Amino acid sequence: MHFASDNSGPVHPQILQALTEANSGYAMGYGADAQMETLRQTLRELFEAPDAAVYLVATGTAANSLALATLSQPYQTVFCSSVAHIHEDECNAPEFFSGGAKLTLVPGDDKMTPQALRNSIESEETRGVHGPQRGPVAISQVTERGSVYSQDELQALCAVAAEFDLSVHLDGARFANAMVSLGCTPAEMSWKAGVDAVSFGGTKNGCMGVEAVIFFDPKHAWEFELRRKRGAHLFSKNRYLAAQMLGYLKDGLWLDNARNANANCDYLAEGLRKAGAEFLHSPDANMIFASLPRATHQKAFAAGASYHLWDGGLEGPEDELVGARFVCDWSIGQDQIDQFLALL
Amino acid sequence: MHFASDNSGPVHPQILQALTEANSGYAMGYGADAQMETLRQTLRELFEAPDAAVYLVATGTAANSLALATLSQPYQTVFCSSVAHIHEDECNAPEFFSGGAKLTLVPGDDKMTPQALRNSIESEETRGVHGPQRGPVAISQVTERGSVYSQDELQALCAVAAEFDLSVHLDGARFANAMVSLGCTPAEMSWKAGVDAVSFGGTKNGCMGVEAVIFFDPKHAWEFELRRKRGAHLFSKNRYLAAQMLGYLKDGLWLDNARNANANCDYLAEGLRKAGAEFLHSPDANMIFASLPRATHQKAFAAGASYHLWDGGLEGPEDELVGARFVCDWSIGQDQIDQFLALL
Amino acid sequence: MHFASDNSGPVHPQILQALTEANSGYAMGYGADAQMETLRQTLRELFEAPDAAVYLVATGTAANSLALATLSQPYQTVFCSSVAHIHEDECNAPEFFSGGAKLTLVPGDDKMTPQALRNSIESEETRGVHGPQRGPVAISQVTERGSVYSQDELQALCAVAAEFDLSVHLDGARFANAMVSLGCTPAEMSWKAGVDAVSFGGTKNGCMGVEAVIFFDPKHAWEFELRRKRGAHLFSKNRYLAAQMLGYLKDGLWLDNARNANANCDYLAEGLRKAGAEFLHSPDANMIFASLPRATHQKAFAAGASYHLWDGGLEGPEDELVGARFVCDWSIGQDQIDQFLALL
Amino acid sequence: MHFASDNSGPVHPQILQALTEANSGYAMGYGADAQMETLRQTLRELFEAPDAAVYLVATGTAANSLALATLSQPYQTVFCSSVAHIHEDECNAPEFFSGGAKLTLVPGDDKMTPQALRNSIESEETRGVHGPQRGPVAISQVTERGSVYSQDELQALCAVAAEFDLSVHLDGARFANAMVSLGCTPAEMSWKAGVDAVSFGGTKNGCMGVEAVIFFDPKHAWEFELRRKRGAHLFSKNRYLAAQMLGYLKDGLWLDNARNANANCDYLAEGLRKAGAEFLHSPDANMIFASLPRATHQKAFAAGASYHLWDGGLEGPEDELVGARFVCDWSIGQDQIDQFLALL
Repeated sequence: MHFASDNSGPVHPQILQALTEANSGYAMGYGADAQMETLRQTLRELFEAPDAAVYLVATGTAANSLALATLSQPYQTVFCSSVAHIHEDECNAPEFFSGGAKLTLVPGDDKMTPQALRNSIESEETRGVHGPQRGPVAISQVTERGSVYSQDELQALCAVAAEFDLSVHLDGARFANAMVSLGCTPAEMSWKAGVDAVSFGGTKNGCMGVEAVIFFDPKHAWEFELRRKRGAHLFSKNRYLAAQMLGYLKDGLWLDNARNANANCDYLAEGLRKAGAEFLHSPDANMIFASLPRATHQKAFAAGASYHLWDGGLEGPEDELVGARFVCDWSIGQDQIDQFLALL
Repeated sequence: MHFASDNSGPVHPQILQALTEANSGYAMGYGADAQMETLRQTLRELFEAPDAAVYLVATGTAANSLALATLSQPYQTVFCSSVAHIHEDECNAPEFFSGGAKLTLVPGDDKMTPQALRNSIESEETRGVHGPQRGPVAISQVTERGSVYSQDELQALCAVAAEFDLSVHLDGARFANAMVSLGCTPAEMSWKAGVDAVSFGGTKNGCMGVEAVIFFDPKHAWEFELRRKRGAHLFSKNRYLAAQMLGYLKDGLWLDNARNANANCDYLAEGLRKAGAEFLHSPDANMIFASLPRATHQKAFAAGASYHLWDGGLEGPEDELVGARFVCDWSIGQDQIDQFLALL
Repeated sequence: MHFASDNSGPVHPQILQALTEANSGYAMGYGADAQMETLRQTLRELFEAPDAAVYLVATGTAANSLALATLSQPYQTVFCSSVAHIHEDECNAPEFFSGGAKLTLVPGDDKMTPQALRNSIESEETRGVHGPQRGPVAISQVTERGSVYSQDELQALCAVAAEFDLSVHLDGARFANAMVSLGCTPAEMSWKAGVDAVSFGGTKNGCMGVEAVIFFDPKHAWEFELRRKRGAHLFSKNRYLAAQMLGYLKDGLWLDNARNANANCDYLAEGLRKAGAEFLHSPDANMIFASLPRATHQKAFAAGASYHLWDGGLEGPEDELVGARFVCDWSIGQDQIDQFLALL
Repeated sequence: MHFASDNSGPVHPQILQALTEANSGYAMGYGADAQMETLRQTLRELFEAPDAAVYLVATGTAANSLALATLSQPYQTVFCSSVAHIHEDECNAPEFFSGGAKLTLVPGDDKMTPQALRNSIESEETRGVHGPQRGPVAISQVTERGSVYSQDELQALCAVAAEFDLSVHLDGARFANAMVSLGCTPAEMSWKAGVDAVSFGGTKNGCMGVEAVIFFDPKHAWEFELRRKRGAHLFSKNRYLAAQMLGYLKDGLWLDNARNANANCDYLAEGLRKAGAEFLHSPDANMIFASLPRATHQKAFAAGASYHLWDGGLEGPEDELVGARFVCDWSIGQDQIDQFLALL
C-alpha cells in the first residue's frame, strides 16, 4: 500500500535490461555515444520535430532549472502556478540557475487560468527599469495537484504567453501520464500547443534517473549545453542515461507504465469516492488529493499504508478531515489498492 | 586500444549486479533509503571517521563544486593547481556554485609545491577589502597530469593551509588509483593528512555515475544538503546511487579495479619508455603524459588506437614530437597494451 | 505642485554646505576618512548602540540588498510585504545580491500583520530540504503605501520573527518620516523593537545620495564590508557620503525635514479629504494614496501638477475614480499645496 | 607630499560649483533629468559617436563590472592583464556581476602584448563544452602600473580580439591621463581603435564620484539599464551625477586636470631618476612605480610623505631597495614635489 510517491518504486525491468545491454565496450563520453544519437532521433520522431535539440539530465529539477535559465534573463520573472514544483520543491534552484530571476506566482490553488496568467503578466513590467521584466511562462502537466490541462486550456495559456512574446516551458515530469490522460500526441501536448521547451520526465514513470530536455527551436542548444556542463549535469557516461530512456520508449513501455498508473489511480479514486472522500483537485492522472477523516488515516497507517498527510497528520480529533496525497506509480497493482480500500 | 579516458569504459558487472539487487520494492526517496544508511556507515568505517557527513551525487563536477561552495564564500578565492580540473574542465562550475568566488592558480604545471602554495596565499589578502579573501585550498589526487602527491607532500600542503586557517578539499576523482599507488589508507590520504572534505570518486573506476562527498566535520552537513538540492543534484531514487557505491566498495572491488588500471599503466609506461617516449609527468597512477614522434601516433591511430593528442595532433611533420595522454581504465587488459606497443 | 516623488526635489543647502566644507585637502579613501569616524560615533549615539557596525552606500536598493544578503543564505526565503520595495522596485536586486534567495510575499496590500507573517513563516520550511529555508523578515517603515507601523505593531512582527529565530531588517528609506510620525527614538524604532539591521535613509529626505546601513550586532561587519566592495558600492571618496549624512544629522535637520514633509502631507490630506478623495491607505507620514475622479486629475495635470496615477491614468471616463500617489518631500511649501487644492 | 592615491584629493571647485547650480527645483529621477540629456549629447559629440549609449554610475568597479557583465556570459572567460584592477582590486565584483564568469590572466607584469593575448585566447575554448568559452578582452588605459598603451598597441590588441570575434572593454578610470599622454582624441582611444565599451572615469580626476559607461553599439543599452538597476547602481537623484560630469567636461577641465597631474608626475619622475630611483614600469601618465633604498623611504615618511610601499615597507635593512607607488592627482602642486625631492 505504497502511495507516497512515484519515485519510490523500482525501475522497470526493461529499463534495467537496457542498461545491461548498453554495458559493453567503450563509448565516447559526454553525450557523444551512439545510444544518445539513436535517442535523439527517436525523440525527434516522437515529437515530430526534426530540428529539436535534445539533451539528458538525471533529475527533474535539473531539467526545469536549466531549461528556464536558458529561456530567461536574471532580471526577468518567470510566471508559474503558485503551487508549481519549481516554486515549492526545488529549494530556489530556478533562482540559482537563472542567476536570480524571480518567480511570479499566478494566483490559484492548482491550474493557472488564462485570465489569471494574463493579469499577472500585465501587472509586471509596468514600472520600467524598476521591476523585473517579463520572462517565460512555466506550466506543469500533470500539475502538482494531479490535474491535467486540457488541450484547449494548454493552448489558451500558450496564446497568452505568445501575445506578450514570452516563451513557454512545460514541466513534464509526468508527461506520459498527462498524455495518456488526454489521448493526444507528444507534439500536440507541446509545440503544437505553443510550448517552446519541455522537461520530458522518465524517472517518475519507471526509469532510474533520467529526464530529457527538448528545445523545439535549436537556437538554444549550445547555451543549454554550456549551462548543463556549468551546472555539473553533463554525465561523462551519458550512454547510461540514453540507454535508460531508450528502454523507456521501446515498445511503448512509457505509455504502458503511465496507463497502468492512471488506471489504478482511477480505480483508487473510485474507491475513495465511495468511502466518502472529498476530492480537493480533479484526479486526472496518477495522483489524488483528497480528504478523509483522521480516524480513517490512522487505521490505514496502522495497517502499513504510506502516503502524505497534512492538516496535522495523524495527531488530532478523529472525526476531523485530513488532506492526503495518494500517488500511483507504474508498478502498483490492483491488489494493493483493494487491500487499502478494504481498510476504509 | 582505448586509452582515451577512464570514463569511456563499461560499468563493472558487480556494480550492475548491485543495481539489479537494489531494484526491488519501494524505497524512500531523496537519500532516506536503507542502502544509503548502509553506505554511510561503510564509508565512515572505511575512513575511520565516525562523525563524517556522507553524501552522493552523480558527477565529479557536482562533487567538487558543491563541496567547494560549502567551504567557501563568494568573496573568497580558492587556491588550486593551474591545471586543476576545477579550473580547466568544469566550465566555471566552481564559480557558479560558489556564487562567484575566484580561483587563484598556483604556478606550476602539475603538482602544487608547498612553497608555491604559500606564495600564492601570501600574495592574496594583502589588499584588505579590495581583493578576494583567502578561501579553501583544492588539491587533486591523482592530479590532472597523472601524478600522485606523496603522503609527505600532501601533509605539507595541508600544513600550509592550516597555517592560514584555510580548509582543504581533495578532488579524489581517482582516489582509489592514488591510494593504491601510495599504499596508504583512506584516512591517511584525507583527514589524517589535514583534508577537510573529499570528493570520493566512483565513476572513473567502474561505476555508472556516482561520487561521494565526505565532510569530516559534520557541521557542514545541512548546508551541503541544501546546496545539493538547490543545485538539482539530489536524486529522488538515491538508492541507485547508493547501490552503485556499495557494489563498488564490496569485497575490495574499488581497490582491485584501481590496481588493475595502475598495473596496466605501469606496463604501458614501461613499453613507451622502451619505445623512446619522453614523459611529461610522472605516471604515478593510471595516466601517462608522454611525447612521441607524430609518425608513431599516425601509425597507432591508423591501427585503431584512441587517446588524446595536442601539439597539432596528427597533422604536421612526421618527426615532430607530439604530446599525448594515455589513460588506463579498470577494464583494460594487457593484450590491448601489447597490441598497441607492437605498433610502436 | 510636485508630488511625484521625494527623490525629485533638491538637496538641502545645509547638506551641500557640508560637502563644500569637506572639500579640503587630502583624506584617506574607502571609509578611512575622519568624517566617517565622526559619523559612526554620531549614529551609534543616536541609536544608543555603542557597538553597532555603521556603513554608507549611495542608494536605497544597495542598502537593502546588501543588508539582506548579509543576513540571509541563498537557499532561504525572505519574508516581506507583497508590496515591498524590495519585491516591486528593485529589479531582482535582493535575489541578485543574495545569490538567488527567494522573497515570500506575506498576503495583504500594505502592512504585514503578525498573523499573516506567522502564517507565511509556518507554511515555509515544512518540506525539509525541498523548499527554501526560512530567512530574514523584511519590514518597511514607512511602508510603500505611506502607512507607518505603530510601535506595538513593529514589536509584534519582530516577536514573530524571534520566535522562529529569524533576523529582522528594517527598510528605513523614510526612517525620519516614520519616527517623527510615531514620536519615538531611533532605538525604539529599531533594536529595542527587535530589529537587527536598518537601512537608514538620507536620499529621500534632503540628501544627494546616501544611506546608512546599521547592524546592531557587529558580527556582520566584515562580511558586509566584503559584500559592499564586491557589489561595487564602496566609495573611494567616502568622505563625501559621510559629509552628506553629517550635514543631514546636524542640528536636527533630518527631523526638521521630515516634520515639514509630514506636516505638509497632513495638510494636503486634509484638503483632499474635503475635496472628496477616498484614501486607499492611511497617510501616516509623507505619502498619500487616494482616489479622485479622473476629471479632477485632468484639471490638476493641465495646471501643471505632477504625481503618479494608475487605473488608466488621464485616459477614460471623467467620473471614474483614479488612484493616485502624492508625495511631499522636505522642500515642499504650503503654497504649492494651496495652489493644488484650489484646483480641486 | 600626498602621493598615496588620486582618490584622496579634493573635488575640483568647478565640479562642486556644478553641483550647486544643479541644486534648484525639481528634476525627474533615475536619469530622466535634463542634465543627463545634455551630458549624453556632450559625450556623444566628444566621442564622435552619435548613437552611443551613455550611462552614469558612481564607482569605477560598478562601471567595469556592469559593462563586462553586459558584454559576457557566465560560462565565458574575460581576458585581462594579470595585474588588472578587475582582477586584483574589485573583490570578485566581475565574477559577481557576470554570474560567475572567469578571468583569464594574460601573462606579463603590466601591459598585455598582442602575442600574449593571442596565446591566452588560443589556449581557451580548446576543450569544447568543458572549459569556459572565450569572452571579452578587458584593457586598462592607463594600466594599473602607470603605463599607457600606444595607439598602435591598443589597435593591435583590439585586432586580436576582433580576429576571435570578441568584444573589447576599456577600463578608463584614468582615461583623461592616458589621452593627454598620447595626444589623441577620445574616439581614437576607443571605438576607432576597436573598443566596444568604455568606463570613462571622473572620480580619480577631480570628480566626487562619477563614471560614465559608454557602449558604442546601442544594442546593449536596455540590458545595461536593467543590470545597473539590479546592481543598485541607478541613482534616484541622477542629476547630481550628471552635473558632476558636466562640470568635469566643461571648458576642458578634465584635460587640464589630467595635464597637471601628468606634468607633475613627469617632474617627480625626473627628480626620482636623479635621486637614483629604479623604475619598475614606464611612468607614462600620473603614476610612478619605482624602487628606492629603504632609508630614503624612512626619511620621507618621517617628514610626512605618504605613498604605498611593498617589499616589507619601512621595516628592514636600510640599504635594501623597496618598491613604491607615487600617484599625482589633479590638485598636486610642484611645491609638494620639490619639498619631497629635497628629502631624497
